[in-house]
Order: sequence, then C-alpha cells, then structure tokens
Amino acid sequence: MTETSTPTAARRLRVDLAARSYDILIGPNLIDAAGAEIAARRPGARLAIVADETVANLYLARIEAAFAQANLPATAIRVAPGEGSKSFAVFERVVEALIDARIERGDLVVALGGGVIGDLAGFAASVVRRGVDFVQVPTTLLSQVDSSVGGKTGINSAHGKNLVGAFHQPVLVLADTAALDTLPPREFRAGYAEVAKYGLIDDAAFFAELESNWREVFAGGPARLDAIETSCRAKAAIVGRDERESGERALLNLGHTFGHALEKATGFSGRLLHGEAVALGMAQAFRFSARLGLCAPSVAQRVEDHLAEVGLPTRLNQVAGGVGPVDGLMDAIAQDKKVARGALTFILARGVGGAFVARDVAPDAVKAFLEAETLEAEAAPA
Amino acid sequence: MTETSTPTAARRLRVDLAARSYDILIGPNLIDAAGAEIAARRPGARLAIVADETVANLYLARIEAAFAQANLPATAIRVAPGEGSKSFAVFERVVEALIDARIERGDLVVALGGGVIGDLAGFAASVVRRGVDFVQVPTTLLSQVDSSVGGKTGINSAHGKNLVGAFHQPVLVLADTAALDTLPPREFRAGYAEVAKYGLIDDAAFFAELESNWREVFAGGPARLDAIETSCRAKAAIVGRDERESGERALLNLGHTFGHALEKATGFSGRLLHGEAVALGMAQAFRFSARLGLCAPSVAQRVEDHLAEVGLPTRLNQVAGGVGPVDGLMDAIAQDKKVARGALTFILARGVGGAFVARDVAPDAVKAFLEAETLEAEAAPA
Ligand SMILES: NC(=O)c1ccc[n+]([C@@H]2O[C@H](COP(=O)([O-])OP(=O)(O)OC[C@H]3O[C@@H](n4cnc5c(N)ncnc54)[C@H](O)[C@@H]3O)[C@@H](O)[C@H]2O)c1
Ligand SMILES: NC(=O)c1ccc[n+]([C@@H]2O[C@H](COP(=O)([O-])OP(=O)(O)OC[C@H]3O[C@@H](n4cnc5c(N)ncnc54)[C@H](O)[C@@H]3O)[C@@H](O)[C@H]2O)c1
Repeated sequence: MTETSTPTAARRLRVDLAARSYDILIGPNLIDAAGAEIAARRPGARLAIVADETVANLYLARIEAAFAQANLPATAIRVAPGEGSKSFAVFERVVEALIDARIERGDLVVALGGGVIGDLAGFAASVVRRGVDFVQVPTTLLSQVDSSVGGKTGINSAHGKNLVGAFHQPVLVLADTAALDTLPPREFRAGYAEVAKYGLIDDAAFFAELESNWREVFAGGPARLDAIETSCRAKAAIVGRDERESGERALLNLGHTFGHALEKATGFSGRLLHGEAVALGMAQAFRFSARLGLCAPSVAQRVEDHLAEVGLPTRLNQVAGGVGPVDGLMDAIAQDKKVARGALTFILARGVGGAFVARDVAPDAVKAFLEAETLEAEAAPA
Repeated sequence: MTETSTPTAARRLRVDLAARSYDILIGPNLIDAAGAEIAARRPGARLAIVADETVANLYLARIEAAFAQANLPATAIRVAPGEGSKSFAVFERVVEALIDARIERGDLVVALGGGVIGDLAGFAASVVRRGVDFVQVPTTLLSQVDSSVGGKTGINSAHGKNLVGAFHQPVLVLADTAALDTLPPREFRAGYAEVAKYGLIDDAAFFAELESNWREVFAGGPARLDAIETSCRAKAAIVGRDERESGERALLNLGHTFGHALEKATGFSGRLLHGEAVALGMAQAFRFSARLGLCAPSVAQRVEDHLAEVGLPTRLNQVAGGVGPVDGLMDAIAQDKKVARGALTFILARGVGGAFVARDVAPDAVKAFLEAETLEAEAAPA
C-alpha cells in the first residue's frame, strides 16, 4: 500500500460553505491515501486519531502507516465502541487527550470510525483551544452517507440524544468504501436506511433505482459507490443551502423524531441501531402522513415494503423487548430538539420524494397515532 | 425598583459583528432593568439564570423580580463560587440543568456573575442543542470591562486554563455598575488590572488619566463609569476587527501568558486572582520588553509603579507561597494556547500604549528572563 496521491477510482465532491468549504473523497482504499491527502492540504500538521477499539484493531495501523509515510506525526486515542462513548465522561477524556497530544491551531483531529466517533471527535475538536480542525474518515455506511458530512457534532445528554454539541465542519472527508467490507451486515443495513432517506426526501428516481438495485448496493462495487455518491451529493447540497438548520436542512430529520424517541425508549442499548430506528421512524412518518391525509396509504405501504425487503424494521412489534408506553415516547418527542414553543415539528410527506417540514403538528395527533401503532404491535407480537 | 426601560444614566455601546452584533449597556441598577431590556429584544423567551452562590445571595431575587415583572419565566441554576467551577464536572451539571429547564432555540441563558460564571454559562449555552443564545450580566469589574465582551467562553483543562471552550457571542451585555459596590476590594483591584491593560496596549492618554484619577475610579461615580466605558469600547473595537483572534485580538493577552503560568503555578488557589496574575504578568511583559531592548527600563518602571500604587502585585516575591521553579512556569507557557509551532508568541511593548504581537520569541530568552526574576525574588523575599 504505497498510494501517495488520490486513487484514480475516487470520486470527489465539494461541500460549498464559503470559507468552510471542503472536499469529500469517496473510493476504495482511501485510508492508505490519507497521509498524502492530508499532507497536500496541511503540510506539517500534527495529528491525533480518535478511533473505537473495533475500528482501531482493523484500520489504525494502516492509517498510521499512511501518516508516517507522509511525515505526519500522529497520536492515537482509543475509546470503547458504541453509543455509550457519546458521553460527557468520554468527551472529557478525549478532549484532555487531544490537549495532551499538543493539538493546536493548524493541527488536525482525525475521526476514524462510524458516526459515534465522528460526532464525539468532531465535538471534541470544536472545543479544544476553542476549535481546532478535523478530518472525517468514516468507516460505516451510515457515517459515509450522513454523519460525516454537514458539521453536526455532539454527544448525548441524560435527557436525550445529541442534545449537546456544536456545528463544526470537517476540513476533509475521506470515505473509504472498501472499509465497508468488514462492517457487520446489520450495521450496513442500518446505514442503508439513511441512503433510502435521500430518495424519500426529494429524489423519487433514486428511490425507484434503489427498489430495483438494492442487492447490488449491498453487494459492493460500482452500484454501492454510486449510491454513496448520490447520498453525499444530496446531503452536501442541503447543507450548503442551510448550514445551521434554520429551514430546509430539517428535511434530513425525516424519520428521526420518531426514531430518536424509539432509541431513547430502548435505552440506546443496541436493541435498535440508529439506522434501524430511522427506518422504523420513516415508515411511521409515512404512515402518519397517510393518517393525516397527506399521502395515499399505498405510498406508506410502498416505503414500508422496500425497507422491510432489505431487512429493516418498520413496525413496533419488531423491536425486541418493546418500546414501552406511549407516554414515554411522547416525553422523548417533546424533549427532542425539534420542538418549538409547544407545537411539534415533524418531517411529513406528500409522496415518495415529497417530504416537507411541518411546524405545527398537534401533540394530540401524534399521540393518537402512536397509540394506534402500539395497539397494533400488541395485537401482533413479533 | 420598578424600572421598565433603560435607566437614563446607562451608556450604550455596540459590538459590531454583522449578524452577531450586540449592545453593551453600562450603568447603575441595570439588574432591575434586565427584564425590560430582555423582553424588548426577545419577548416570550424562557430564561435560565446561572449564578454562583455569592452572587445569587446578593442579586438573584432582584433579577428574578425584574424577569417576573416582564413576564419572563426563569429557572435559577446555582454553582459554587470560584475558579473551580470552570471544570468539566460543573459544566456537565449546568448543561444538563439547562436542558432540564427546556432551554431551546429562541430562549436565553443569563450569566449573572463574574468571569467564571460568564465563561462557564456562555460555554454551556454554546453547546446546548448545538447553541442557544445568552446574555451577560457581569457583576465584577473584571467581567464588566473584559470577559463579558467578545465571546470567548470556556472552562479549564487539567493542562491549563481556558483550554476548552467556544467562541460564542452574547446577544446582550448588561453591566450594572452599582453591583460593584458589594465586590470585595481585592476583587475590584484585580479587575482594575484589565482596565489599566487597555491603556498599556494602545491608549497612552487613558493610562495617563488613570495614573492621575485612579482613586476616583476606585471610589465609584462618573470616573468609574467612564473607565468602564472606555475599557469596553476598546475591547469592542478590537473584537469587532478580529473576532477569532487571528491577529490583533491577541493584543488583549498582554500580561496573560506570564499571568496564566503564574495562576497555574499557584494552582488556581486564590493565592493569586486572575487580575492579580495579569498585573504581575503585565509588569513582567514590560520588564521583558526592556530586557530585549524594545523599551526603556523607565517605561517598565512606570508601569510597575502605577500597578503597585493601586495595590496590585508586580514582583514574584509578592506571591504568597511562591510560584515554584522556572521549569514549571516554562511548561505552562509552552502548553498555553498562544504557542505556535515551537516559537513562543508574547505580547511585548515598545512603550506605554505601544503593545504588539511578537510571534517569534525564543523560549531561551523567556527562560533567562524568568530565571533572573526568580533569583531577584529569592534575594528579596516579601
Ligand atoms: N452528525 C450527524 O449528522 C449524524 C447523522 C446521523 C447519525 N449520527 C450519529 O451517528 C451514530 C451512529 O453511527 P454509526 O451507525 O456509524 O455507529 P458507530 O460509530 O457506533 O459504528 C457502528 C459499529 O460498527 C463498528 N465499525 C465501524 N466501522 C467498521 C468497519 N469498517 N468494520 C467493522 N466494524 C466497524 C463500530 O465499532 C461500531 O461498533 C449515532 O450516534 C448517531 O446519533 C450523526
Ligand atoms: N472570556 C474572557 O474573555 C475572559 C477574559 C478575562 C478573564 N476571564 C476569566 O474570568 C475569570 C475571572 O473573573 P472574575 O474575576 O470576575 O472572577 P469570579 O467570577 O470568580 O468573581 C470573583 C468573586 O467575586 C464574587 N462576586 C462576583 N460579583 C460580585 C458582587 N457584585 N459582589 C460581591 N461579590 C461578587 C464571586 O462570587 C467570586 O467569588 C477567570 O476564570 C478568567 O479566566 C475570561
């Protein structure tokens, strides 16, 4: 592995944010090119790599070799795998380790891993010396198509997910698609929910393509690369137009309000992965839209069918151990960050590719919907 | 106390930062006008007041009454007084309390207190839901003339002061000059170091005025109001030109590199208050400048004389318990956030009002200077 320039197979996108613009490179074995890519942009930078144990065991030596070859001194900081690392305690430890590694302005934090590591390391970078730059090297499908792009970083609060954090854009995203080969199938599938999301939001043609080609996307090769590129392009475009989520960017939360409530109800326990919660949440968002008369029930069914076909959960009875009473879900929804002055904000849809931000959803309507869903789950345990 | 509009005595300045511009109001009893001032700008906001126990006992009931009168619901969050509250543990507690108080976009965190509270509450506001707005109600001289203006917020790291934080501008600063009447004299004097600093940086006339009028500034009344206004204006101007400290803003660190090292050496123990450390650090910065041939020794003497006259420390032998070996100070200086690639950055001066950013100071020169200072302190114990 002695790549010293961008592998020719890599696709290059750009997130346009004036002074904060950055490249996204997508392609196989980009980890081996990380040293060259970073040295070209930031010669002489000191690096600190944050990775979870699982990813470190698989890829740390390779990225360290790439950095050594490019003469970039690098310190590694390891954390436990899993959502539990998005905590104040781990955040403090990573921040102190970054300071200990003498990361200062001009240096770089490298987030090597999935969304947990990107969120945690990005947030830590945003606060060290009031902000140092960071690079995303996403290694899960979810992080390659979603969390590594757009600058949302953060940790979880005792009150809910992602309630503590910063907007902090990376200076570069290196999505090594070959790294996905070691990803457990369940994790790949969970990430696929976010791929499908881009079709559901505003790209009906992409969703239709996925309906026919999803097996190739799962198998790897060009179809996977295409799907990741299309997803990143969609996210980059929305972020470029609305960095701080004052409007349109909220569309990316399709399925996430229900999804976060479900994750909270299952205690972030791994009973429901983030992407799985989003899949179920998207199915619910379309069923709720149908119930409100916004789209035909057949549209909700179509969405559910596709998600179910790839093996994602779409019904409450598929959540091992259940999600508890509706009141608990409602509390989580009200505490969720998309609440504005009592009225609930939801992403609803008029069709596949027809999502919109509804800022005035009545809590009672949500509650009635969730009660119907819960009754149905009780009537048909998995 | 039923003020409902800005008391006529209040001075109004503006910090110009495009979309992040804000007002600074300075005057007696502004705490009683806080409700009206905030309601005028943000009707219907929910408030969370962060205060330390000392300040809460003195002013919380009054500001709560002002908020109640303006129909602004407010939750109070109390922390222990002192630098120790700028810790990860207290930060976590405040962040969770703000989320618990359902502070969301459009709501406001109110920092009622000195620089510790402003830094802590401002940083907490910057990360709650990735950023909510905050108001500074500074109650110490130091916070009124310095820390409440400019958006630097943060906490301390195990490795040094203010190494963790965010740039987060307040949306309003209300400096109640009458609150200074309850401030212990030692705290007032410490804050005065930052007032003198503005003269030393680039306003020789202001420094000369202070030399003749400092007793009136300490006594209160118009001279004090004038000095606070001049200081805020100086800070606002520099911040307006260089919000992120990419250049000129570093001038505000006059005395702070030595000062931080001294605070660290004394363990942030209260043996040396921040402003006292800055006073001693400024005296050192001028002596170091004289040693380097940048200014006449008489200039350094003049600076020292004024600071000593008001009762501020200017020599190492005045630090109760001492500051330990030079190596400890050098470590702290190297770990300080103003280090760039090995060379040390210091604010030096060619004269009173003639400070400049020196980015290439040789560590050896600093060490030799500190050794001379230490020898002298040992020769003449206080
Ligand atoms: N910032 C954002 O915009 C945003 C968007 C969506 C989700 N998120 C966050 O992302 C997180 C979920 O991300 P995730 O699903 O990537 O989780 P993750 O980071 O926990 O990764 C999932 C699991 O896969 C393992 N893994 C990662 N890469 C691997 C590889 N190449 N081979 C083998 N194993 C590998 C990890 O060790 C982990 O156990 C959540 O915390 C969610 O809140 C953030
Ligand atoms: N953010 C910035 O730009 C900036 C600039 C300079 C200093 N700082 C920070 O500010 C802090 C020092 O600020 P400080 O000196 O205001 O310290 P502080 O907040 O600890 O206040 C000093 C003491 O005075 C008490 N007090 C406050 N107001 C009072 C009043 N009106 N009456 C009676 N007692 C009162 C407090 O309880 C405390 O014990 C340091 O942490 C320093 O790093 C920040």
